[in-house]
Amino acid sequence: MNDVVKHKHAHHAAGGRLCMPETARSVVRRRLAIAKGHLESILQALQKDDAYCVDVLRQIRAVEGALQKAGQITLESHLRAHVATAAERGDTETIVEELMDALRYR
Amino acid sequence: MNDVVKHKHAHHAAGGRLCMPETARSVVRRRLAIAKGHLESILQALQKDDAYCVDVLRQIRAVEGALQKAGQITLESHLRAHVATAAERGDTETIVEELMDALRYR
Amino acid sequence: MNDVVKHKHAHHAAGGRLCMPETARSVVRRRLAIAKGHLESILQALQKDDAYCVDVLRQIRAVEGALQKAGQITLESHLRAHVATAAERGDTETIVEELMDALRYR
Amino acid sequence: MNDVVKHKHAHHAAGGRLCMPETARSVVRRRLAIAKGHLESILQALQKDDAYCVDVLRQIRAVEGALQKAGQITLESHLRAHVATAAERGDTETIVEELMDALRYR
Repeated sequence: MNDVVKHKHAHHAAGGRLCMPETARSVVRRRLAIAKGHLESILQALQKDDAYCVDVLRQIRAVEGALQKAGQITLESHLRAHVATAAERGDTETIVEELMDALRYR
Repeated sequence: MNDVVKHKHAHHAAGGRLCMPETARSVVRRRLAIAKGHLESILQALQKDDAYCVDVLRQIRAVEGALQKAGQITLESHLRAHVATAAERGDTETIVEELMDALRYR
Repeated sequence: MNDVVKHKHAHHAAGGRLCMPETARSVVRRRLAIAKGHLESILQALQKDDAYCVDVLRQIRAVEGALQKAGQITLESHLRAHVATAAERGDTETIVEELMDALRYR
Repeated sequence: MNDVVKHKHAHHAAGGRLCMPETARSVVRRRLAIAKGHLESILQALQKDDAYCVDVLRQIRAVEGALQKAGQITLESHLRAHVATAAERGDTETIVEELMDALRYR
């Protein structure tokens, strides 16, 4: 794959493997880094005797919300870069099943 | 509050404020520490050019699942230590509204 | 059980069994009836050839939201009427485990 | 559009509008009909004085689970029939934004 094509289809690795577009990758990385910081502050709060359950619950849910948002960005990027082009590549079945499997998780 | 009472009602801080029972606090701390480690490994993976969206999505959802479990343990501990005793203390309205508000989050 | 007591503790059935307070029961019934109507209109829409996936998805999620809200009202009523009084009755373990089990569902 | 093509691409209505493939439509319809029946039996249970909150909660969550499953089938069908073919049609942006918007609901 030459450089021009690589730039136009940045979601393809050298070997032709699908990979996450750079923009989404850096947005998700930044969001997860913030979520990690939030998680660290909960861990700190949990070291104190007077941590209160409801505060902890609220903080945990805030981090869950942040992760969910990061997941949405990842999903949107995947739909645009890989799912929307599946029929062109001819791998619709694989790509749809793989995604549904990942979304069903939990 | 003397030492004996403090031990029997470990979920009350010195000033009588409700606080999270020690056991739940350490279980939740341990689980969140693991979730943080998992989050760090996703951040590492996201630094590579060939990170794949669906793998990232799956990992994010696994961490969400871990946080959800930590939230459930926190909730269970809160129900047992503080909600079940609310009528005795006479603060049912406050404790129920506060919890519903925390659960509605997101 | 005489009428006065029955009014004060409307969440106890004749045999002393816990049961849902009348107010919550009628609010939840009304909300679920609306959800059912919404579900019926989705079923109607699904009979037409030109139903569109995203519209159906949106409608299903709206009904899920309505059910979630009905679940929250049920939970709040249960916390107030039965969980907050558990220590007084002496059945904290049973009531907490039962609720956590119901919440973990799915 | 002739009959053969219409059969091959059953997810296009006469006017070329995207629409839900017949198979998914009938599977989702069947599942929603079952969910509706379940909802009706909760409504019946709620007419009795001795309905118990936790039972109601459990039933509501079961219906939520059923709707979620119907939503997954709808989503899978949409990904296969419409999202995977978006680049071919040239409407990737529209189709991805529309779906993300529907999924963010709630």
